[in-house]
Order: sequence, then C-alpha cells, then structure tokens
Amino acid sequence: MEGKQISKSVLKRLPGYLAYLKNMPEDAPPNISATALATALGMGDVQVRKDLAMVSDGGRPKIGYQRDALIYDIEQFLGYDNTTDAVLIGAGKLGQALMGYKGFDEYGLNILAAFDQCPKSKKTEEGKPIYPIGKLSDFCLTHKVLMGIITVPAESAQEVADQLIAGGIKAIWNFAPTHLDVPGGILVQNENMATSLAVLSVHLQAQIKEEKEKVAIKK
Amino acid sequence: MEGKQISKSVLKRLPGYLAYLKNMPEDAPPNISATALATALGMGDVQVRKDLAMVSDGGRPKIGYQRDALIYDIEQFLGYDNTTDAVLIGAGKLGQALMGYKGFDEYGLNILAAFDQCPKSKKTEEGKPIYPIGKLSDFCLTHKVLMGIITVPAESAQEVADQLIAGGIKAIWNFAPTHLDVPGGILVQNENMATSLAVLSVHLQAQIKEEKEKVAIKK
Repeated sequence: MEGKQISKSVLKRLPGYLAYLKNMPEDAPPNISATALATALGMGDVQVRKDLAMVSDGGRPKIGYQRDALIYDIEQFLGYDNTTDAVLIGAGKLGQALMGYKGFDEYGLNILAAFDQCPKSKKTEEGKPIYPIGKLSDFCLTHKVLMGIITVPAESAQEVADQLIAGGIKAIWNFAPTHLDVPGGILVQNENMATSLAVLSVHLQAQIKEEKEKVAIKK
Repeated sequence: MEGKQISKSVLKRLPGYLAYLKNMPEDAPPNISATALATALGMGDVQVRKDLAMVSDGGRPKIGYQRDALIYDIEQFLGYDNTTDAVLIGAGKLGQALMGYKGFDEYGLNILAAFDQCPKSKKTEEGKPIYPIGKLSDFCLTHKVLMGIITVPAESAQEVADQLIAGGIKAIWNFAPTHLDVPGGILVQNENMATSLAVLSVHLQAQIKEEKEKVAIKK
C-alpha cells in the first residue's frame, strides 16, 4: 500500500480503528466487516470502508477483513513497526508521566532521555537519564534523534524548539500551550489540552443553561 | 455575545488566541489587530477576524482590539470565569500529573477528588482525596459534579464512563485510548495521544524516505 496519498483526517481516524480492533475480546470472530466496525464506533459505513481500503487490501465481500491482518496493515501503515527515538524536554510531572507511560512502546516510540533546566535527579523512575538542557542539541545530533517532545512551560517552549531544530529534529510533539515558529519541513503536533477544555466547558455551559430554563418553566 | 451559534472549529481556535495574547510581553502595545494576531500565529487574516468578531465586539477599524478586553471576552465566552467541578478516575502517573497541573485553575477547572480501583494512598501530593472507585457515582450526585476525567486503562474505561453517567455527569474528558458509548446529551472529548503519534510517525517516515532517496542519488 506504499506511496498512496492519505489525508490527515484519515490518518487521525486510523488509531481509533486500531484501538477498537486490539481491544476486542479474544473469543470474538476472526473476521470483521467495515460495516460492523462503523456501527461499533458510531461512524459512517462508507467512510470506514474507504479508510480501511486506503491501508489494507485484505477486505473480501461478505467476509470482511481478517482481524489480525487488518491490525498488522494499520500498524505497518502508521510505522509502529519502526521504532522512533525521541527526547523529552521538561522533566516535571507531565514529562515524568509521559516517560513512564508504557503504551508508547506499542506505537514504536522510544524516549531515549529527558532534559531539564535544573534536573532534580540524574535518572527517571524508569532509569532513563535526565540531562541538563545545555546538552540537548549535541545529544540529538549524536544519536540522530528525529523527534522531540516538549513539556516545558509556555514561555520556554520556543527556545527549546530552536535547540531541537539545531539538533536536526524533524518532528515536535508540543504539550506547551503556545504557538511554535518552525521552518518548513518540521512538523509540530500540538497536544493542546486547553482546546479540549474549551469544547467541554462550552458544552457544560449550554447544559447548565438548559437545566435552568427547565427549572424556570416548572416554576 | 450570548446566544451566538459557534462552530466547534472556531471553539478550538479560541484557546490558541488566548494563549498568545496572555503570553505577550508586558511592554507590548495595549492594542492588537486581527491581522497582527493572524501573522503571529501563521493563520489566515480573514479567519482570525471572523473568529474574534464572534466572541467580542471590541474591534475598532485601524486600532484593533484592546488586548485586556479581548482576553476578558474570550475567557468569558469559554466560561473560564465559572468554575467547573470535576472528578478524575485513575490515579496512576497520568492522573497524578493532571491532578498536579496548576494551569487548570486558569481554565476554571477544579478537580475535587480522584478515584482509583485500589488507591495506594488517601491523598494526592497536592492534598486532594483519593477514594475507592465504588464511591464514584454517589460522590458525583452529592457534589453535583458535571465533568469526569478518565485516565484508567482502555479496558476499564467504559465501566467508569457508565458509573459517571449514573452519577449525573454531562461531559467526559477521555484519556483512555478507546471509544466510549454514551447516551445523547453527554459530550465525550477524546484526548487521543495515539492520534497525534500517528500524524508524527507518518511524517517522520516520509522524511526518512526522502533522506534515503537523496543519499541514493548522491551515490
């Protein structure tokens, strides 16, 4: 399936399919149709069918996909079989939580080391090294690291990004709630929790307003 | 500005504007135009102008917005001035990181308590209580909690969601990498790190391929 152009929105739906397929009970039937997957995830039939066809040619009419083969094809497509080395900058609570998250192995992500302005210890709980931030660019160049994970406060994030780019990094996973200026060819993926909170907060406001109106009508 | 219909995509851009405006240096001019904001964030002029007009009527031709007033209007719109009480389920590393994250105050989010299958201690580092999960629904009903934050493993997430809904919750912030089935009127906001990793991973694969091709041409 190599070389097929795929849109970012398809890309963003693939991990959802993967999570569902991998979490199915062991005694589930070995085959699954695009329709069954769509129903389970509350998505459109046609969309799921098209998405799966982009990454796997294992679909058979009336039979569907062999589940294991489909999992393999999606993982292959997402590059989870190639390990990506990464560094993490900002060994605070969020940084430590990410360093300790075992699920990343499954996605082929390997965090080699953490960096911090003033490291409080030399190692994380998992035994990975924590270096002073001055060594960041050199470390990335020496170890040919391509991905940096930024978990520093907003005001230091741009400086860290600049050092990562000087170290030859090609992709940044940004948890700092700020915009980063980067040259072309560098991808920034913002993990913006504020964005999610905004969506939740506005939904709750609408719900509260509705409840109040109901109460007012009853009165 | 109450009552204006706003799309989810506008909603998702507002926290970005807010973060930029709040991070501006103290000696920056008191006014900012939509154009200046668009340039700084690498976004389209027209889009930013329209978005801001949805939440604030403080824009003046040739002068722009008064920065403090614009910050106030966006925060007001997003409901950051009303505090939302929430509970968090799953007091593992990610859960603890979220409990300890001070930035949430700024968004009007107040995590009252954590719940865990087998609490290892009775309090978080910040002194918030950790209760056994059996008390979840009752706690939500008693304290009229409207938001639940799920940081348990994928296989327990649906069960936790059901208990939250039984407790009268209206919005779920889901960090478990799985799909949740919920009745209408309940909003689920998925914080799917796997999605971000997929985007980053595919970008890096393309970059590596490009580098290899360059090397091959040189040979």
